Formats: sequence, structure tokens, C-alpha cells
Amino acid sequence: MAETTSNAMWGGRFADAPDAIMEAINASIGFDKRLAPQDIAGSRAHAAMLAATGIIEASDAEAMRKGLLTVLSEIEGGTFEFSTALEDIHMNVEARLTEIMGPAAGRLHTARSRNDQVATDFRLWVRDQLDLAEGQLLALLRALLAQAEAGAEWVMPGFTHLQTAQPVTWGHHMMAYVEMFGRDLGRVRDARARMNECPLGAAALAGTSFPIDREMTAEALGFDRPAANSLDAVSDRDFALEYLSVASISAMHLSRFAEELVIWSSAQFRFVTLSDRFSTGSSIMPQKKNPDAAELIRAKIGRIFGAQVALMTVMKGLPLAYSKDMQEDKEQVFDAADNWALALAAMEGMVRDMSANVDALEAAASSGFSTATDLADWLVREAGMPFREAHHVTGTLVALAETRGCDLPDLTLADMQEVHGDITEGVFDVLGVHNSVASRTSLGGTAPVRVREEVARWKEIVG
Amino acid sequence: MAETTSNAMWGGRFADAPDAIMEAINASIGFDKRLAPQDIAGSRAHAAMLAATGIIEASDAEAMRKGLLTVLSEIEGGTFEFSTALEDIHMNVEARLTEIMGPAAGRLHTARSRNDQVATDFRLWVRDQLDLAEGQLLALLRALLAQAEAGAEWVMPGFTHLQTAQPVTWGHHMMAYVEMFGRDLGRVRDARARMNECPLGAAALAGTSFPIDREMTAEALGFDRPAANSLDAVSDRDFALEYLSVASISAMHLSRFAEELVIWSSAQFRFVTLSDRFSTGSSIMPQKKNPDAAELIRAKIGRIFGAQVALMTVMKGLPLAYSKDMQEDKEQVFDAADNWALALAAMEGMVRDMSANVDALEAAASSGFSTATDLADWLVREAGMPFREAHHVTGTLVALAETRGCDLPDLTLADMQEVHGDITEGVFDVLGVHNSVASRTSLGGTAPVRVREEVARWKEIVG
Amino acid sequence: MAETTSNAMWGGRFADAPDAIMEAINASIGFDKRLAPQDIAGSRAHAAMLAATGIIEASDAEAMRKGLLTVLSEIEGGTFEFSTALEDIHMNVEARLTEIMGPAAGRLHTARSRNDQVATDFRLWVRDQLDLAEGQLLALLRALLAQAEAGAEWVMPGFTHLQTAQPVTWGHHMMAYVEMFGRDLGRVRDARARMNECPLGAAALAGTSFPIDREMTAEALGFDRPAANSLDAVSDRDFALEYLSVASISAMHLSRFAEELVIWSSAQFRFVTLSDRFSTGSSIMPQKKNPDAAELIRAKIGRIFGAQVALMTVMKGLPLAYSKDMQEDKEQVFDAADNWALALAAMEGMVRDMSANVDALEAAASSGFSTATDLADWLVREAGMPFREAHHVTGTLVALAETRGCDLPDLTLADMQEVHGDITEGVFDVLGVHNSVASRTSLGGTAPVRVREEVARWKEIVG
Amino acid sequence: MAETTSNAMWGGRFADAPDAIMEAINASIGFDKRLAPQDIAGSRAHAAMLAATGIIEASDAEAMRKGLLTVLSEIEGGTFEFSTALEDIHMNVEARLTEIMGPAAGRLHTARSRNDQVATDFRLWVRDQLDLAEGQLLALLRALLAQAEAGAEWVMPGFTHLQTAQPVTWGHHMMAYVEMFGRDLGRVRDARARMNECPLGAAALAGTSFPIDREMTAEALGFDRPAANSLDAVSDRDFALEYLSVASISAMHLSRFAEELVIWSSAQFRFVTLSDRFSTGSSIMPQKKNPDAAELIRAKIGRIFGAQVALMTVMKGLPLAYSKDMQEDKEQVFDAADNWALALAAMEGMVRDMSANVDALEAAASSGFSTATDLADWLVREAGMPFREAHHVTGTLVALAETRGCDLPDLTLADMQEVHGDITEGVFDVLGVHNSVASRTSLGGTAPVRVREEVARWKEIVG
Repeated sequence: MAETTSNAMWGGRFADAPDAIMEAINASIGFDKRLAPQDIAGSRAHAAMLAATGIIEASDAEAMRKGLLTVLSEIEGGTFEFSTALEDIHMNVEARLTEIMGPAAGRLHTARSRNDQVATDFRLWVRDQLDLAEGQLLALLRALLAQAEAGAEWVMPGFTHLQTAQPVTWGHHMMAYVEMFGRDLGRVRDARARMNECPLGAAALAGTSFPIDREMTAEALGFDRPAANSLDAVSDRDFALEYLSVASISAMHLSRFAEELVIWSSAQFRFVTLSDRFSTGSSIMPQKKNPDAAELIRAKIGRIFGAQVALMTVMKGLPLAYSKDMQEDKEQVFDAADNWALALAAMEGMVRDMSANVDALEAAASSGFSTATDLADWLVREAGMPFREAHHVTGTLVALAETRGCDLPDLTLADMQEVHGDITEGVFDVLGVHNSVASRTSLGGTAPVRVREEVARWKEIVG
Repeated sequence: MAETTSNAMWGGRFADAPDAIMEAINASIGFDKRLAPQDIAGSRAHAAMLAATGIIEASDAEAMRKGLLTVLSEIEGGTFEFSTALEDIHMNVEARLTEIMGPAAGRLHTARSRNDQVATDFRLWVRDQLDLAEGQLLALLRALLAQAEAGAEWVMPGFTHLQTAQPVTWGHHMMAYVEMFGRDLGRVRDARARMNECPLGAAALAGTSFPIDREMTAEALGFDRPAANSLDAVSDRDFALEYLSVASISAMHLSRFAEELVIWSSAQFRFVTLSDRFSTGSSIMPQKKNPDAAELIRAKIGRIFGAQVALMTVMKGLPLAYSKDMQEDKEQVFDAADNWALALAAMEGMVRDMSANVDALEAAASSGFSTATDLADWLVREAGMPFREAHHVTGTLVALAETRGCDLPDLTLADMQEVHGDITEGVFDVLGVHNSVASRTSLGGTAPVRVREEVARWKEIVG
Repeated sequence: MAETTSNAMWGGRFADAPDAIMEAINASIGFDKRLAPQDIAGSRAHAAMLAATGIIEASDAEAMRKGLLTVLSEIEGGTFEFSTALEDIHMNVEARLTEIMGPAAGRLHTARSRNDQVATDFRLWVRDQLDLAEGQLLALLRALLAQAEAGAEWVMPGFTHLQTAQPVTWGHHMMAYVEMFGRDLGRVRDARARMNECPLGAAALAGTSFPIDREMTAEALGFDRPAANSLDAVSDRDFALEYLSVASISAMHLSRFAEELVIWSSAQFRFVTLSDRFSTGSSIMPQKKNPDAAELIRAKIGRIFGAQVALMTVMKGLPLAYSKDMQEDKEQVFDAADNWALALAAMEGMVRDMSANVDALEAAASSGFSTATDLADWLVREAGMPFREAHHVTGTLVALAETRGCDLPDLTLADMQEVHGDITEGVFDVLGVHNSVASRTSLGGTAPVRVREEVARWKEIVG
Repeated sequence: MAETTSNAMWGGRFADAPDAIMEAINASIGFDKRLAPQDIAGSRAHAAMLAATGIIEASDAEAMRKGLLTVLSEIEGGTFEFSTALEDIHMNVEARLTEIMGPAAGRLHTARSRNDQVATDFRLWVRDQLDLAEGQLLALLRALLAQAEAGAEWVMPGFTHLQTAQPVTWGHHMMAYVEMFGRDLGRVRDARARMNECPLGAAALAGTSFPIDREMTAEALGFDRPAANSLDAVSDRDFALEYLSVASISAMHLSRFAEELVIWSSAQFRFVTLSDRFSTGSSIMPQKKNPDAAELIRAKIGRIFGAQVALMTVMKGLPLAYSKDMQEDKEQVFDAADNWALALAAMEGMVRDMSANVDALEAAASSGFSTATDLADWLVREAGMPFREAHHVTGTLVALAETRGCDLPDLTLADMQEVHGDITEGVFDVLGVHNSVASRTSLGGTAPVRVREEVARWKEIVG
């Protein structure tokens, strides 16, 4: 219809209507309608401020604020008809508001522009996501702490290069992820504090000559302060890029844990059993129980980090101020946010539900000469060897055990003394896996006593 | 409903139903329903082959083939009810087929698996996109050739570093993009030839003991041959990555041209006028006419290349054969394909519609000492100087002209001879921009005669 | 030499020496020698702690600490001979220390492993880079503030879509970048605070049974605290990824400013003159003066962000704890750090040296109906129109001026009143570009008074 | 020295020498000296052509060609002194040539520019790398074929989701990688054919007025044809991006195989034993034997794909023709090429050396109900059930076996008939893993007979 071509808002000087392909590439309403609650909150705050500063009549502001609530409930109720010709959420809302309250709705656009409007909407949305992520990370931390507490003493192999290195405790392994997701939480909070500035009032790019009160709108919308430079406020998207990089790093952590869960639930490892609630079967192989949730979490880093690449590429080399390229910011962030949230929720559920196969863990930890380092350390400590020599002696003993087809604790004292005369009976105290982990009491070490302290410390933090 | 939980197809051994979050992360029907036409084509070919080889009854096959057409028309007609609990398009189609024709529908899954099924569907879809891209690239090439032909003689500045370097012709500049998009076309065709192998019959990963005829299904679906290794057929997605890299390189070319159009339509350059059909206005600044389509095309490389990053990251380090991670392949390719198609269409439209400001182009070409190289070449050719010396003499003359506030052709012969005695009246023949471009007749050069030859050559190619 | 094959340190059990290609892919000494100062600092702190806790003799520790200084001075003096067979910086340093002080050097490796050693070295190196970046960002901010102060009143076009939108001040534009690089500074500081934890003492992955004092080494190396989990301490590289994402976002800001400088120094814009010190000429076109520094800065985002992609891809899906894949972390960070530092330095130099062409800026600002928004705002404020109607009236006046071939201030009052009767003489007060910018006094606006306040505020901050 | 500042070649108009930081960011000689052989080959071809066309004297050309060989031998001999002030390889070579033969060396730069010169050098270099990759891929294919041939009958588990799915043969698994690296080979060849066009003679961007013979230089340098558009020839780098995407996809394949080798050599899997020549030990854990080569290959995709991101980002949105940004192309391609070559060589060596643990493979294949699909297929084929019902019956039998703690072949016929009465003695023929793989004779299937055919086919291809 003529009245809904995109010309309606800005088309006075234009002889031709936009090409169909132009409308398809240009319209953002297909995705930015998701910003409706933020857009309406921003407009309501703006209307109140315009009245408070005397720029518009209080009665107009009141009608706007009420009308906007009507629009919101129509959108939430699914009865709102979005128009592609109206391009974006801002125009769609305003057009409907005009229908509701008449041409005075046009006064709402005083002292603002779509440029500061969308920058405000998008910041509010991203801020909500940061708050959501904070809650999800805390929930995940709690699930990990419960696992760590339960298994503070369970022994499992610590791997390097996926080769058995030294025994560690299940609790210690869980607590490694607590540290990682804990840092993710720190990044979430830092990003939120930095980005919580209100662009509203920057107008198109230069600010305005109307006597607006930017402190008032900033406060009404929960921002810590108004953005200090109007050009910057409408031009930059570093807050979105920071959000994406925080999410990407967290997705990296998730992918590592997910990889472990996939490997651990293989028939060859059998370290964990994932619950049926987070597994699937096969349409062709009736015996299969697949760790699909773990695999999907492992994969999510792809699209989350891909979104960061996408937006970084878009922003590269763009002159100030707003360029239409920046319209590509939202879908990337929406998709990354949805998938990060999904991955965090699925991981929390899996961690809550999974059960460690304690016997399999201990058996694996007890093989592969996993206490060779304990032996070497004993030689240093008790026999006074330099570490490099102790390493060499231990290597010889490992080779001996390998030849015998046994593990280190199965060698006799005589065997050992043949390799090095200073070895005494005491060496056997450090060769069992429980002895090994119990001895590693250095700060941050894998000893159950240390793990329990860390669990207690973190419980304080996450509440 | 109980009968539509995802357990229905594989859940015999499962005690618990999937978690809600599991269903959310696991289901692909939200996006893979886009593969319905391919899925149904694949199933129809499979049914026909099963009958031809005697694996199922001809009457069952006939019922399947007919029922599948019914399903397709329901989907196309929008009456099909997709079920998330049925996970994906394959299960949704099969469940509906069972409703239509009864339990014999279950025989359709003989000698195949969802693994080879989805690999087939996805290849068919990507192949269609390659065919679409081929057509769009040809259309864009034609639009560029029309511009090149019209402006084979129009003179404009050739830039390096966005500084005026030497005059070139408009036609020559357009033909540079013809070469680029021409190579994109070559990449599209190479990718299509390489990926056109049929996975159907690879089954889950190992092939099958049923006496299937893979040549028959391959041919029915327009593939050049069956894939030669069943493990590879269900495990790799390099065809999708190759598609994305072809699209990314093309998007890079598009972004460069789009950047030029944005700069060229600035008030400072005024080299082109974009049509209203591919421009927009401002909600706050009534005088604005913005090159939005060019900006959006410039930006599209972000998400297209981001998709490649996403899928490459997903595939990194995945063991054979199918892992659920690979479910993340489709949305990336769908989004990239849609946006590449949109960008190609918008660019073709813009190129068709845009008009060069011939006078502004020539004026710009005539300033900035753009024929300094012609002067230097003249000194080499006519005065026998080594190029390096000629470069130095020319530099001195440029500095002189700069001091005088004029351009090179405005210097007098006396001025010039003061700098170097060997300069003669003949030098002025090479200093005008039309002389300059007309002289560059080397193969691939900017001279109108060369441009016209290239236009003719390419017209043969693109038809 | 036999004694320097890589077998020397770990080869007891190995029958065959490594393949030549293995040595080539495995050795890191070619690049990690750059960590020599950090490695030696770490070892000296470790030696002191081992003595203080009674784990080794004080005399041995003293010999180690002295010997390590000798090694450092040999490396700094260029006389140290690095051996590829010794794989990495840690082995190279230790082997030389053994030559200097004899086998007691082997005691240095007590209660540590190369895993915690390299994690410590690399953190120290990245921390130094964060400190360097902080200093460079501050220097760049000062250069921008000097430009902003000088040009607080200079008028230039504010662009959206590279189309003239509204006049802004040069100072305001410079201050937009102050905000951006100011946020980069905040990110640098947050990253430093988060990563400043000491891995030393985590040993291979599990901690140690020696009675080490991790607080002591942490403090000696300037860390805020020891890392709280030994598995995490040797496994994660999120600090490097955070560094790269901070650098990438900053490089994005640099690329935008660089793009502006390239465009601004074109013959068509002539907004700035870059100094000869940051420009280059052409080997073939004597008249050229190219903004190479700006172009290279614009390009640097490529490799900096590429490094982030590289490391993110490496880390994706790696099981705990250390895997050899992680050796790929360093070259990426080294290259990104070098290039970010180079880009910051070059940008600071260019900003210090560049001169704005004030007349060209004002002329450009005065064309293109840049005060149309001021006119529309006047109609709202003085004539009481809703903004949407004012926008329409202004559009009509712009079209009229365009027909007349003049700008808005050149229309007569009669012309204007013909379009809308409520327009009065007062309108001309807002139509000049100086009037326009002076009027935009909202917080964060472009008015000189606001710019000067912001300059003063920031001068306080950056000192 | 004054005579080697970068002003020497283009500085006539410049009042100030470049800033030190400018020289640091601008100079490329630190890396582009690697192009010396290509640069000299290009110059020698150009000199010959200039003489053949009468543009310069034959004696000058002869002196140039001889002098250039002297320069090459100085560079190869390590006696050449590179100067940063001379910026790049082209200037360094030319300056030395001038020393050798006097100012007539300056005539070499007739009818060319650094723009076409570097485009030519870089294409020659990339073409060499494509040839190298072709040879390496062929060698890797041969190593895989040898493994496949040896183990055409060895049975191993085929995994999906890293869960045992169905038995496959070792040879079949190896042949899956033959297909993948075979497609990589196809991409290498397509890329080479497309990029083999000679830019020489494009000059700065517009071609030249000298009567050059571009066919002659193209042929002399082994190109298939001259590039058809001079602007395009100096502006595009799509050939480098295509090279990087081909390398990235191949690196993805390498990463997948490497991941398998890491997992397969874990204590839990023990599917393969890697040779000592491609393994390393630990500085702290004497018992370790780590699959470092596999891990490093797995990681290489990071920097190879990172290079593609870097160059794609650089090229995004660059206007024609040459911009200095493009100088960033070379280091990315150099690094990616070196690392791809290293990864291919290491993989070939590992594959040649590795030995499959045939017993462990078969034991793993025989567990996990891996022939459940064979049972289901038998029910379809022999008992005439629809697949979906057969799937259900099989699931029940799997559950029964699980309860009994045995595998499917260990159930009695009576057990089976209790679940479904149509089951007969014949079912046991399909339940053993050898029976299973032998039965999968469909085209591309895992049956030894099929594998041997494929090995034979590929041996023909790779020679």
C-alpha cells in the first residue's frame, strides 16, 4: 500500500520507490522486532524527559507513554502487524502509536534520531544478556561445586597430551572449570560496567539544541551515565564486540569440557555416564546412546566465534558516524547470545545429572606409571638427587616395569635397588595413587584437603 | 504427546525422556525443514531403487513415492505440522508418510540412515545454490559489460592509495570487476563439479549388505557419480566449506566495489549517481540520500565469512564418522547463501541503474598531475633517459607546477626546458588525459580500443 | 652432537631419535627464545623460594641465581648459542646453566615442570605488553586531545553513510576517538588485573608434594596472587585470548580512524594534510604522496584478529591439561602484539603531525544542506510543529534549494514562507554552520563549549 | 646513510625524511626478500622482452640479465646486504644492479611498476607452493594407500559420536582420508589453473604506451596467459585467498586425522602405536610418550585459517587499485604455506611409521553391540519386517544382552526367539564382526573386497 512504502518517513525527495530487492536487503524489521521491549522502554523514558524539560506538553507525553504500553501489549500478544515497508522496529512502533494517539505522536521524535534510538535499544538488549549470562554462569559454578564436593577424593588420571601423566582428584578437575567459568563471570561483569552508558540524546550524531536532560533518561533506563560524546555514542559497537569476545572465550571453555565428556563417555574410557535426559539414540543402530548435548555444546563455539568474526569484519574500516553496514550487528549478537545461553543451560544440566564411574577412574589412574613423578620427587627429597638425575633413574625403572609387564608399585625393592642403591622401603609410600594425590598439598594442588578448601571458598563467592 | 516425544524413533533403551533444554539444543527441524524438497526427492529416488533391486515390493515403493508427493505438497502449502519432538526433517517426513500409507512406510529406511540421508539432502541444496550463484554472476557480468560498453571512452582517475595515479577509462574499471566476478564464476563451477557425488547408500557409515544400486539413485538425483567411500560420504563437509570460501571471496569482491560506490557517491567525489530505487533517506535529515544498498553489500562479507569461520571451527578436530557437531553446518550455509544471493542481486540492480557523472570523472582525472607518468614515459621514449632519471625530472616539473598552482599541461615549454633541455613541443601530446588513456594500448591496458575488445570477448562468454 | 639431541632431557625410554621433520615441527626455540628474560626471572624467583623453604641449599640457589644472570647477559649480548635439539628456551637455559655451575643446576627443576614454567613466562610477557599498550594508548589520547583542543571550533561535516549529515566540530570528532581509545584502555586494565596470577608451583598439572611457598614466588614476580588451581594454571590460555580480543577491538578503532585519514587526504576531500614523515612516494608516479602509514594501520586489524582466530581455533575442544597444540599460542600473540604496538605508535605520530585544512573542512560543512536538521528543529521549537511534519516541510525546502542550485541559507524568506507560512526571519539564525554547532550544547554534543569541557575532563584523566 | 633513505627512489617532492616508526611499519624487505628468486626471474624475463621489442638496447638487456644472476647468487650465498631504507626486494635488487652495471639499470623499470612486479613475484611464489602441495598430497596418499592395503581386512569399530556404531575395516577408514586428501588435490589443481596468469605489463594500473609483448613474458615465466585487465592484475589477491582456503580445508582434514591419532594412542584406546620418531617425552614424567606431532598437526589449522581471516579482513572494502594495505598479504601466505607443508610432511611420516594394534582394534569392534544393525538388517531381509519394527526388536535384544552382561552373538537362539519368533539360526551368520564387514559390499562399503578395489583404483591415479 502507498501509505506503507518505506518512502513514508523519509521519501519526500525521492522520485522512485525502492526496488523490491532493495526493500529485502534494507529492512531490518524481520529481526529487530526482537528489540521491541527495549525500544518502547527507551521511548517511554524519552517522552517523560521531553515533558519534564518542557519540550513537549505533559499531556502529549502521557498519551505517548500510555500508547506505547498498548503497542507493547499488542506485540507481546502477537496481534501487532509488522510492516516491512516501515523498515524497522522504531518506525513500526511509531506508526502504530500515531494510529493510536494521532499526529502528536510525531513529537516523540523530537531531539532524537533512529541512530541514538537503536544504539540505546541494542545496549539495553546486550545488557540483559550479560545479566542472563551472569545468572547462568553462577548456576553452572554451583553444579560444578556439587560435583567437586562429592568427588573431592575420587582419583582419576590427570592427562597431558591425552596420555596418563599423574593422578588427580575428580574434585580438582571440576575445580579447574570453576576457575575458568569464574573468570568468564569476571569478564561478563567488566563488560557490563563498561558498556552501561546511555546513547539517548546523541540524536543523529551531533547532539541537539533542545534543552534535554540526558541524566534523566540514563537513570530511568538503568544506565550508570550518559555517553560522553554523541558521535561516539551512535558510531561504535565495541560493546557488542566485547560481548561476543566474552561469549567466545566462555564457549572455548565449554568446548573443552564438552570434548572431555564426549571422550569420557566412550566405551574405551567409561569415566562418566551421562543421563538419558542429555543423550539420544540412533535411528539405525538400536544399541547407541550418544552424547549429543556434549557434542552440540562443543560445536557452539563455531557460531559464537563466527559472529564475532562477522561483526569485526563489518566494523573494520568504517568511517564515522553511523553507516548502514552497522545494521548487521544485531543478528550476529542475537544468534550468539541464544546459543551461548543454550550451551550454558545444557552444560549445567549435564553436569548436574552426570555420574562419575569412580572405579573406572581409579583403575585408569592406577595404570600407565602415573606415579613416576612421585618416585622421581622421592628420589630428590629422600635420596638427595638433582631432579634431572632422579628423572633418569625413574625412566629406567619405568622401562623395567614395562618389560616386566607390571606397574611401578609392583616392582620389588630389590628390583629398584639394582637400578639405584639409595632406594629404600619408604618409596612405596608414595607410589599408590591415593598417596600420590594426598601428598600434593601445595597451594592449588590436587590433594583432597586443598580441593575442599577451594570448594568452600567458592561457595562463599557464588552464594 | 507421548507418541511424538523424540524417544519414538530411537528411545527403546532410554529410561528418561530428554530434558527440555536437550530438546531445544538437539532439534534441527526449526531450520532443516528448508531441506524438505531435497529430502523428499532423495527418498523418492531411494524408494524407486529399492523396488528396482527387489529389496522392497514395487507396490510399496509406489505408495511411498506417491505419499511423499503428498507430504511435499502439504509442506509447500503450509498445512504440514512440524514437530520438534520428531527432531528433524527426515523424521517429520517419515512420520507423516506412515500416517498416510501405514507401517510399510518403515521399509523406506531400509539400507539407509539419517547420516547418508542428510548428507544427500544438504549436497542437493548446496548444488542448487551454486546453480543460482552461477546465474546471478552471469547477470552481474552482463550489467557490468553494459556499463563498460557505454563508458569505454569516459576518462576517470585511476587511484592507488586513493590518490590520483593515472587516468583510466570507466570501461576499463568496470572490466576489472568483470575479471573478478568471472573468476568467482570459475570457482562456482569447479566447486559444483567436485561436490556432485551422491552419498546415498553409505548408510550410517559402513555401507550396507542389501543389494542396492547406488548408480541408479545417483543418476536419478542428477549426481555425476556415487561417493566412493561410505565413511567419507557421511563424515565430511568440505563441500560446504568450499561453497563458503567461494562465496566469501566473491563477497570480498562485492565489498570492494560497494566501498567504491559509497565513496563515489559522496558529495566530495560525485562520480556516480545511484538510483532512488537503491537509496534511502533519513528519518531526521530531510536532505539525505544514502547509498544503503552499497553499504549493506559491503557489510555482507562479514556474515558470509563469519559462516565459514563458524563451520571451519566446528569441523576442526572432529573424529570420523558423523558427530552431532555437524548439525551446525546448515544454518551457517543457509544464512551465507541467502545473503550472498541478496548481495549479488542488489549489486546487479545498482550497477544497472547507476549513472556515471562523466564530467566530474573527467575533471577529477585531469587534476592531480595524473599524466606525470606519461611525461616520464615520454622522457624515456623520446629523450632516451633511463626511467629513474625521467622519474626525477618529472618530479621536479610536478613540484614546479604545484608552486605555480597549475597542472602539468599548463606549464610552458620554456618552463619545462628550464628543468631539462631535451624536452620538446611533442611532450604536450601525451599530457592530456584523453591522449594518456588512448596511448595505453598494451594488452590489458586502459585504452578504449582495448576495453572494447575485452567487452566483445566477454559478451561471447556470458552470452 | 649426540649430547644435544632432544633425547637428552626425556629420551631414556626412546629407541629412535626424532625424525628431522619432527624436530622441525616440534622445536619452539626459534620463537620462544623471546621469553628468555621472563624465563630467567621466573627461574631466579623459583631458586630463591626453593632455598627459603629449605628444599635446596642456599649455596646452590645462589649459584643458580648468579648463573642465570650470566645466561641472561649472554643472550642479551648475542653470544648465546641456541640449540634446536634442546627444543625450547627452558631447556636451552637450563643446559647452559649446567655448563656454568655443574649438575646441581638440575635441582632448579625441583617442584616445577615446563608446563608451569612456560605458563608463567608467557603471562609475564603478555603482562608487559599490556603495560606497553597502556602507555601507548595514553600517548595517543594526549595527541588526540591536543588536536581536539586546537580545533574545538573548527567546523567540518559530520557524515552518516559518508553523506553530509550535520556540521560538527573537529574537536568533537577527535573526542569521539578519545572515548574509543579510552575504553580500549579500560579493557587493557581489566585484562591485566584478571590475568595477574602466578602459575608457578602448579608443576606438571597436579601441584607438588614439596613444601613450596607459592605466595613468595608470586610476589617476587609482581603477581597479585598464585593461581588457585594447578590444572587450570597450566591448561588455560584465556588470558592470551583476552589480550588478543582487547587488541582486536582496539585495532578496529584504529582501522576506522585510518580509513578516515585515507579518505580525508584524497584530492577530493583534502580535509587533512599528513606530514611527509608519515607518507611515501611512488616509484613510477612522481606526483604521488601516499598515506601509507594510514593504510598499513587500517590493515593491521587483519593479522591481529587473525591471531585471535588462530588461537581460538587451536584451543577449541582441547581436553585438559596441557596439550602440545598449545605451543602455537606464542607466535600468534607475539605477532599481534608487535603489530598493535606499531600501529599505535604510527597513529600517535600521524595524529601529532597532521594538520587540518580548516577552510576545506568548513566549506564542505557548509554544503549539502547540512543544516536541514537545524531548520526542522527550529520549526518544531518555534512553530510548534510535530517533528514528522517539520521533517516534511524541510524536505520540501531542500528540494527547492536544490532546484535553485543553492543551499538553504541562500533561500529568501519569501521562498520559505511560500512553503510554510509560519517561518520567520529568525530561522536564519540557525542556518549557518557556526550557529548550528554552537547550538548543540546538549551533554555530549558538538558545541565548542562542550568539547572544551570534555578536553579538560580527559586531560585530568590522562595526566 | 643519506643515499639509502627511502627518499632515494621517490622522495624528490618530500621535505622531510620518514619517521623511524614509519620506516618500521612501511618496510617489507624483512619478509619479501623471500621473493628474491621470483623477483629476479621476473626482471630477467622483462629485460629480454624489452630488448626483443626494441624498447631498450639488446646490450643493456644482456647486462641486466647477467647482473641479475650475480645479484641472485649474492642473495643465495648470503653475502647480499639488504637495506631497510630501500623498503622492499624490488628496490634492493635494482639498487644493487645499478651498482653492478651503472645507471642503465634504470631502464629495467621501463613499462613496469612495483605494482605489477610484486603481483608477478607473489603469483610465482604461490604457484610454487601449489606445486609443492601437490607433491606432498600425493606422497600422503601413497602412505595412506599402503596402510589401507595392509589392513584391508583388519576390523575396527566405526564410530559415530565416538560411540561404537558398526564394525569397519582399517583399510576402509584409511581410504576415507584418501578421498579427502584426494579432493584437496583437486582444489590445488583448480586453484593453480585459475591463478596462472601473468600481471607483468599491467604497470602501475593502466597498462603502458610502450610496445611491450606481454605474451612473451607470460610464456617465459610459465604462465598460461597474460592477465586480461591491468587494473585487476595489480589490485586483486583472490588467488592468495583461494590458496589459503584450499590450505585451510586441507588443514581441517589433517586436524581430524590428527585428533583420531591422539585419541587412538591413548592408554584407553591403544588402537595405534606411533613411532618414537614422531613422539616425545616429558621433562618431568619419565613414563610419558606423547603424540606431539599429531597434536601439532591438529593445531596447525589455527594459524592457516587465521591467515585466511587476516587476509580476508585486509582485503575487505579496499577500493581499486593497489593500496598499501595489500602489503600485508605476504607474511600470512608465507606462514600458512610453511605450516601446511610441515603438517603434510609430518602426517605422511607418521602414517608411514605407525602400526595398528590389530588385536585391540578387533576387540573394540567386537564389543558395544556393534553388529546390532546387522541384526536389524537381517530381520528386514529374512523376516520381512519393516525397518522401524526391526529396529525396535533389535533394541529389545540389545537391552537383554546388556542385562545378561554379554554381547549379541552370546545370546542363545532361545533368548532371541523369546523376543521374536521369526528369528532362526541363520541370524548368527551376520553377528560376528568379520561377517559384518564382509557383508557390506555395496559400492563404497567397508567390505575388504571393496577396499581392495578402491586401493587399486587410487594407485592408478597417484602413480
